[in-house]
Amino acid sequence: MINLDHISAAPLLPEVKEVMIDAINSDLHNPSSQHQAGEAAAERVEAARESVRQLIGAGGGKEIVFTSGGTESVNHAIKGVALASRNGGNHIVTTNIEHNAVIRSLKRLSGFNFKVTSLPVDETGRVNPDDVAKAITDKTLLVSVMHSNNETGTIQPIKEIGAITRERKVLFHSDAVDSVGIVPVDVDDLNVDLLSFGSNRYYGPHGVGGLYIRKGTRIFPLLEGGVQEHNKRGGTENVIGIIGMGKAAELAARDMDTRMTHLLALKNYILAHLPEYIDEYLINTNLEYSLPDLLNVSLKYIEGESVMLMLDGDGVAVSTKSACATGSLRASHVLMSLGLSHADAQGTIVISWGIGNTASEMDRFFASLAESVKMLRDMSPLYKNHSNMS
Amino acid sequence: MINLDHISAAPLLPEVKEVMIDAINSDLHNPSSQHQAGEAAAERVEAARESVRQLIGAGGGKEIVFTSGGTESVNHAIKGVALASRNGGNHIVTTNIEHNAVIRSLKRLSGFNFKVTSLPVDETGRVNPDDVAKAITDKTLLVSVMHSNNETGTIQPIKEIGAITRERKVLFHSDAVDSVGIVPVDVDDLNVDLLSFGSNRYYGPHGVGGLYIRKGTRIFPLLEGGVQEHNKRGGTENVIGIIGMGKAAELAARDMDTRMTHLLALKNYILAHLPEYIDEYLINTNLEYSLPDLLNVSLKYIEGESVMLMLDGDGVAVSTKSACATGSLRASHVLMSLGLSHADAQGTIVISWGIGNTASEMDRFFASLAESVKMLRDMSPLYKNHSNMS
Repeated sequence: MINLDHISAAPLLPEVKEVMIDAINSDLHNPSSQHQAGEAAAERVEAARESVRQLIGAGGGKEIVFTSGGTESVNHAIKGVALASRNGGNHIVTTNIEHNAVIRSLKRLSGFNFKVTSLPVDETGRVNPDDVAKAITDKTLLVSVMHSNNETGTIQPIKEIGAITRERKVLFHSDAVDSVGIVPVDVDDLNVDLLSFGSNRYYGPHGVGGLYIRKGTRIFPLLEGGVQEHNKRGGTENVIGIIGMGKAAELAARDMDTRMTHLLALKNYILAHLPEYIDEYLINTNLEYSLPDLLNVSLKYIEGESVMLMLDGDGVAVSTKSACATGSLRASHVLMSLGLSHADAQGTIVISWGIGNTASEMDRFFASLAESVKMLRDMSPLYKNHSNMS
Repeated sequence: MINLDHISAAPLLPEVKEVMIDAINSDLHNPSSQHQAGEAAAERVEAARESVRQLIGAGGGKEIVFTSGGTESVNHAIKGVALASRNGGNHIVTTNIEHNAVIRSLKRLSGFNFKVTSLPVDETGRVNPDDVAKAITDKTLLVSVMHSNNETGTIQPIKEIGAITRERKVLFHSDAVDSVGIVPVDVDDLNVDLLSFGSNRYYGPHGVGGLYIRKGTRIFPLLEGGVQEHNKRGGTENVIGIIGMGKAAELAARDMDTRMTHLLALKNYILAHLPEYIDEYLINTNLEYSLPDLLNVSLKYIEGESVMLMLDGDGVAVSTKSACATGSLRASHVLMSLGLSHADAQGTIVISWGIGNTASEMDRFFASLAESVKMLRDMSPLYKNHSNMS
């Protein structure tokens, strides 16, 4: 299989597999236990925390909370800050293109007397920092804007928004699940108070992630119980997963530049050669501000899901939208926010590659895509009508 | 090391290691992805769910939600049911000996207009079902009572309480983290609507667990985002951990009887031989209703933590209380609830063994314990005073 669906799942790196298998075979004890066996496990967890800390430029390990992944991190950040708010703050500012973890957390809060302002993005998929500044009121307790979008790869002006929230003394959370480990993300440079991230995005395991909480941030835990994670998240740690995440973070930091060069070369290869294989498509990714490893393409007159299934038959995996939204028949809220028609939004495939992919794999993908698109358009009444019109 | 601290960490079974390592090497994709690679991952997750379903006698797989462990399960159950309550229900009944995950979740809710009645236990550590019946009012939305206590191993009359909650039409959650996989637990037999459990207790990995939610139970998700876990828990699954948990559940169900026989034989061995090595101790475990693999012992006139550290020096791991409470200097709330003095509560060690432990290991433990107790009592002013008095 050619994995052009890295955004849903990136393969574990050999070095990550190695440390996870070693952890499995090491019979590590509970990191909270006070005997030597417990301390040995705790040391492994703390070493992983240090690698993660370095990856995002956090000031100290106590600012990093290990979670069960990006969704927990986002829920923790948003619900935790909202419920801990004092002085009547009940207003949150966000954008129309956030991941469902943000949208649903905010929707839940809006059932409990919190007010949400959701900002539009322009046709390139970016929010205007001035809109954020205007939306902030004296009741605003939190601004939550994603670093990059999981469907389009478009990167938001987080640093500019962070300067505004810093000046206005409002907490700022960024869902950076799809950026951390792929492009440089530094919590101080970005002026964020909270940052959500995962592990699989940079070739670590699924089901483990982290939340950066700037020292001094007032927040309630989401998972309450034991005193783990500096009393910020109860529950015995996913030690094996954390060890894998730590190794993945270490390698992501070390190899980021060379990886970005490779990923960007493939992006340019796709952009250069796609026109040789298909016509009548839209690129929904902002090419000036975006991730190096993802393109969102709308294929006119046909269904993205049909294309995905035909490519799958040819051994090429792509996605049509967030894997988290699988089963939902609705068009992507992200693409609708860009102003796409419902038909164009449904005609979308998301192509996301990794450090193991090659240009010759892209050629195979192009050929398969061209054939799929032709076959589907030949069957498409929409395409026939269009052809008759022109 | 002789691991007599299984309650904090049980070693992974060889079969569990094998399936986890296979999962790591299989490059499994995202179970929510619709292509073949995603479906292959989903099949592995669903096979694990079926093993877990069978272990606890759930009616269908949709009633099982995979979580990041017992703490998430408990937070999800309690906060999820409370926040979803309608018709003015704002009262929850629990006991004084619950795990901190329950206590802290309820404490958080009490800051948001929920009322909590916490029931005492008798000197054997059990709650009286009649007390539960009396505590239920027309505002009661939930009763939460643990199946077995993590510090004493004492088992509560869950079935009797379940009959009451069923009759009174109040939801019933049981924190069964320390029982599931060790003793028979059947959600229908117990009349529970929600049941929290983990994976490490029965030799699966840490950081993964489950929540049973009876069909029709009104509950909000704790982690909101994608449509994973039948829309009950967002976030890409910890696939490797879930596969390990599934194998552990399968083996726990298959081998439960033989394991219990072995564990109970070791319990009886300890009870029979401990008096040959030490005197002046209390057994805080209810010997009629308790787990087969844990004893809570208060060693008079000395500190349990000192005993734990000396045993550790001899290569024997025990605990003094919940690993989740490490770092807290306070005496165990569980033991104080049994009526122990502060001094006796601080003199406690928790001995918890597993299917790999042997009687000869117990002999080594006894010898080390006898030496540690003697040395500590020789230094103890409390013990000297006591000796002078008698």
